[in-house]
Amino acid sequence: MVARVVQHVERAPAAVVEGLGALGVATVHEAQGRTGLLGSRLRPIYRGARIAGSAVTISAPPGDNWMVHVAIEQLRPGDILVLAPTSPCEDGYFGDLLATSAMARGCRGLVIDAGVRDVHDLTQMGFPVWSRAIFAQGTVKATLGSVNVPVVCAGAVVNPGDVIVADDDGVCVVARDRAAAVLEQGQAREANEEAKRRRLAAGELGLDLYDMRGKLAAMGLRYE
Amino acid sequence: MVARVVQHVERAPAAVVEGLGALGVATVHEAQGRTGLLGSRLRPIYRGARIAGSAVTISAPPGDNWMVHVAIEQLRPGDILVLAPTSPCEDGYFGDLLATSAMARGCRGLVIDAGVRDVHDLTQMGFPVWSRAIFAQGTVKATLGSVNVPVVCAGAVVNPGDVIVADDDGVCVVARDRAAAVLEQGQAREANEEAKRRRLAAGELGLDLYDMRGKLAAMGLRYE
Amino acid sequence: MVARVVQHVERAPAAVVEGLGALGVATVHEAQGRTGLLGSRLRPIYRGARIAGSAVTISAPPGDNWMVHVAIEQLRPGDILVLAPTSPCEDGYFGDLLATSAMARGCRGLVIDAGVRDVHDLTQMGFPVWSRAIFAQGTVKATLGSVNVPVVCAGAVVNPGDVIVADDDGVCVVARDRAAAVLEQGQAREANEEAKRRRLAAGELGLDLYDMRGKLAAMGLRYE
Amino acid sequence: MVARVVQHVERAPAAVVEGLGALGVATVHEAQGRTGLLGSRLRPIYRGARIAGSAVTISAPPGDNWMVHVAIEQLRPGDILVLAPTSPCEDGYFGDLLATSAMARGCRGLVIDAGVRDVHDLTQMGFPVWSRAIFAQGTVKATLGSVNVPVVCAGAVVNPGDVIVADDDGVCVVARDRAAAVLEQGQAREANEEAKRRRLAAGELGLDLYDMRGKLAAMGLRYE
Amino acid sequence: MVARVVQHVERAPAAVVEGLGALGVATVHEAQGRTGLLGSRLRPIYRGARIAGSAVTISAPPGDNWMVHVAIEQLRPGDILVLAPTSPCEDGYFGDLLATSAMARGCRGLVIDAGVRDVHDLTQMGFPVWSRAIFAQGTVKATLGSVNVPVVCAGAVVNPGDVIVADDDGVCVVARDRAAAVLEQGQAREANEEAKRRRLAAGELGLDLYDMRGKLAAMGLRYE
Amino acid sequence: MVARVVQHVERAPAAVVEGLGALGVATVHEAQGRTGLLGSRLRPIYRGARIAGSAVTISAPPGDNWMVHVAIEQLRPGDILVLAPTSPCEDGYFGDLLATSAMARGCRGLVIDAGVRDVHDLTQMGFPVWSRAIFAQGTVKATLGSVNVPVVCAGAVVNPGDVIVADDDGVCVVARDRAAAVLEQGQAREANEEAKRRRLAAGELGLDLYDMRGKLAAMGLRYE
Repeated sequence: MVARVVQHVERAPAAVVEGLGALGVATVHEAQGRTGLLGSRLRPIYRGARIAGSAVTISAPPGDNWMVHVAIEQLRPGDILVLAPTSPCEDGYFGDLLATSAMARGCRGLVIDAGVRDVHDLTQMGFPVWSRAIFAQGTVKATLGSVNVPVVCAGAVVNPGDVIVADDDGVCVVARDRAAAVLEQGQAREANEEAKRRRLAAGELGLDLYDMRGKLAAMGLRYE
Repeated sequence: MVARVVQHVERAPAAVVEGLGALGVATVHEAQGRTGLLGSRLRPIYRGARIAGSAVTISAPPGDNWMVHVAIEQLRPGDILVLAPTSPCEDGYFGDLLATSAMARGCRGLVIDAGVRDVHDLTQMGFPVWSRAIFAQGTVKATLGSVNVPVVCAGAVVNPGDVIVADDDGVCVVARDRAAAVLEQGQAREANEEAKRRRLAAGELGLDLYDMRGKLAAMGLRYE
Repeated sequence: MVARVVQHVERAPAAVVEGLGALGVATVHEAQGRTGLLGSRLRPIYRGARIAGSAVTISAPPGDNWMVHVAIEQLRPGDILVLAPTSPCEDGYFGDLLATSAMARGCRGLVIDAGVRDVHDLTQMGFPVWSRAIFAQGTVKATLGSVNVPVVCAGAVVNPGDVIVADDDGVCVVARDRAAAVLEQGQAREANEEAKRRRLAAGELGLDLYDMRGKLAAMGLRYE
Repeated sequence: MVARVVQHVERAPAAVVEGLGALGVATVHEAQGRTGLLGSRLRPIYRGARIAGSAVTISAPPGDNWMVHVAIEQLRPGDILVLAPTSPCEDGYFGDLLATSAMARGCRGLVIDAGVRDVHDLTQMGFPVWSRAIFAQGTVKATLGSVNVPVVCAGAVVNPGDVIVADDDGVCVVARDRAAAVLEQGQAREANEEAKRRRLAAGELGLDLYDMRGKLAAMGLRYE
Repeated sequence: MVARVVQHVERAPAAVVEGLGALGVATVHEAQGRTGLLGSRLRPIYRGARIAGSAVTISAPPGDNWMVHVAIEQLRPGDILVLAPTSPCEDGYFGDLLATSAMARGCRGLVIDAGVRDVHDLTQMGFPVWSRAIFAQGTVKATLGSVNVPVVCAGAVVNPGDVIVADDDGVCVVARDRAAAVLEQGQAREANEEAKRRRLAAGELGLDLYDMRGKLAAMGLRYE
Repeated sequence: MVARVVQHVERAPAAVVEGLGALGVATVHEAQGRTGLLGSRLRPIYRGARIAGSAVTISAPPGDNWMVHVAIEQLRPGDILVLAPTSPCEDGYFGDLLATSAMARGCRGLVIDAGVRDVHDLTQMGFPVWSRAIFAQGTVKATLGSVNVPVVCAGAVVNPGDVIVADDDGVCVVARDRAAAVLEQGQAREANEEAKRRRLAAGELGLDLYDMRGKLAAMGLRYE
């Protein structure tokens, strides 16, 4: 496996990225046909953050965070680091020093299918992380990996430049070239939801709002 | 398996339900002989909620939330939805729209051995959920299940109308016809605990308070 | 297995313990050569606590918390209880009554490779716990264990009197006789980190700060 | 919780039990409407056993196998022991001595949501066990439990006298009073399957055999 | 998400596929730079099978095996079915009837990040399966998925037509257009290993065979 | 952390080691007071092996098997390799080449709290392994660890030269200086068991054999 750093990565337009972030993970996931979710094992280190940005990806060996330093140089303002270890690992690849460096480059957060540490400081700094574990276990800098190559992170394919949306519900990836279309569908969905929300809040039942009674009866649901 | 909705469910008296809620999960569990806990994999989506209510149960296929809509119609004020999938699943069966609808019917919360989403909104709305996962994964409406039938939820049997108590410690179920007796025992236990708490706070040891030294010595505990 | 209670335990000097606590888990772990971490399955019941203290250890049978009462008598101000079950268990060995008693003896917190309950009360009391589970499951008092013997807790050896450091990142143990040396190394490390943090915050890259470019190139990293 | 032993338990007719055993787990599970499976964490200690029998149930504290001795006295030829711990536990409750005793009473096997040991000997003896773990961890005899009470074992309700079917696919429970009806449905299903198997083996497609093409097209499946 | 079936899939040449199968999973994985392994949660239902074939992929909803029927029509002799559920699921999507049908089409085996059942029959039939679980839980046929689209199966990207190699060590995927090159590298590696094996069997140490002593000393390894 | 290799390790007498191996894991564990078991996550790669030997321990970084080569040089006939990674890892540290080398040095097997590969070959060679995973994931040789230092392996402390006993029930460690005493107790226990086995096989109940009825009644067990 050649270790490489791809330096030229296309990003989605800022307005599209912001728009997707405003929709949030659940809506974006639905808007693109219920795809793109990263596994539920990725959880935010603190609640309340909602971010969107372009992925700078890292494929790293287990227990080795050298490539994070390499990746930070590739960051542009508005980017999000996405790290996938090459085999399952929960070591703490990332802490407050790396976060300081990443923030100085305009990074919006980290998505990592491994561990993170210094979470108290990261929370104070307002640097959000979605990780598989919180674990202080240190890493080495001995083996190469790659930056800005396609990775599978917590079960989802992430290509460099893809849009990452992350909030309290988890993390979703949107392919860069589908981002504008997904945004459009998500906004339509959201507009639609607002009307539904008002009707449901007023006590109308989903059974009626979605006209389900006939279909349920036809399938044999029996009321006793 | 016939898919069915049982419409007439007995509930425990409101005063009993409120009383059990005031005791909390740990005390209720002890009061009924250390039984009735749902598995520790069910965790609250936010801290600080303590609820009690009557169970409206849902048996749902994996990845299909159709029956939630059916169940909401069966809710009475003070009820709690309890959803058990028919096979292990962590999909997000429930989000802010369903919570809006359930709250409009007087529902106090959701206990689900699967996933939930829109947790930021649910937290803002003050709709508490105890779930196995937070996962935005969408569900379909294609297959029937049942409402208000006995279910096994996270390892505990829940019958419709049973009292559910949930707080930061987890979730406990009390059989409807035992609820008054359990309340009585729990209140006795609590009164008893208050006196103990004062003595322990004053520095008295449990070894003395519970008169354990003799028994420990008899069993062979050796001080060195 | 003889059940025994060791009453005379050496502790590290208070100043050393406080110093290690000020450094925090990640720094202490690094300072002692990346050793001493307890497994990431131990999580704090609430965020923001950072404690250090001397270990009073408990080896307890599954589902039996009798020895906790025995251990509380052995506590001195500044101590931390460390409980390891003799086989995997997530029962709630510890709740608000035991915390009241432990606090009255000057105990700073609990580290337990099992479950804990009454977490709402423990949070209100400011008694921090790092545990494997939050689970209201009650325990019995029927079988002996030992107090102040060496234990393996979440994968790490803890001897009575060892220094425990715990914060949002998890839990680390420092052997009593290495504590002063580890403190010294940790403080040196921390001083060093502060300078790095400022340079990274100013936008300098880790690649340059740590002089990595040559080594990466020598190992064959390819920029494209 | 009163500790009790229920001595008079109704069993299903031997012919029904044998018939269900001949069908096997997957068929029985389907025949009763896709219900009754115990969780997939229960695995056989060796392959190739297929048993059916009447459940003698045990509710046991974690790490305490005293009630197994009590249960063995309640065994009749053709019975199967079903043990559910009162909280999650993987200790080795059962080994070759208990198996010797159980076999002497005509017991056909053990289903246990905990651990088992001496598996080499059990395999040699031909005593099949479905367990959550293989673990030599010893247990004590200090706390009571109950025998022949309803239990939840690996997520399924088992009442004493219910029919247990177990094979390489896992374990299924059939309520005693439904056993004859389930047998009938299972045998019908099996007869039906044999014809299907022949047609499929001859190369006919399920798409045609089950007449699926029209429905798939109507739902929008697109061939490219 | 459009549900679709891609009917024209390129396969790798039979000789390349056979060659990769002869190498086995560990060697193929090394030969392509330590990539392509599916997660270790996929285990063979019986030991001793070693297969290679071209992937026919299935993306299926949780608990719904309808698309397996659709996929079987797309099989050509020498193919391997690869099923990835759209959210985590361990239901038994596949049993002896489907295996009969797949074998009639020349299918060599199944790789499934979910459950399988009828494993006793599948073993008798010699139809190998690598699965996440053995679980008799039945599935429905109510929702569409896709066949021969790219999937992520147990953490690895599998495109239709990619070469799958599976043996007792697990499962590896080789991109179709890299298959010939990987075969070549694997064969070179294997030839090389044979010579090493003889020297190691004769008692030569890896420390000498791989000339490690100098490098270890240079890095500071201390013999005491 | 200094990386070091301890070359002079005391072993237990061969007769003691053999004697413990003859007893097997469950008996040895009981004989030393129910201590010394490694976690149940360590499973044999094939059934039927029962070994005992002296531990040569390896503390290795995640994903790095360099120290295995170093350890092999330290092996004496009758030894067993025991590898504990410094953070959780399931990579395949060990395969058929290393086994060839270890066997040439008289090694009896491997106990590893990580992964192993080439399990088909290892089985053919008769080289037994107890591991946490079977996973072909390759490792690197980039970072030092230590050989023959105390390690915690799957939750148990193993010192170099301790006796390891492993069979189908798992793995147990006996401290070298307690080995003779444990052997004696184990043999006494075994002799005792044989008599019990005969009585139980003849139909005598454990309730009578162990004289339990009185104590059960005294504790309140109620027969109904």
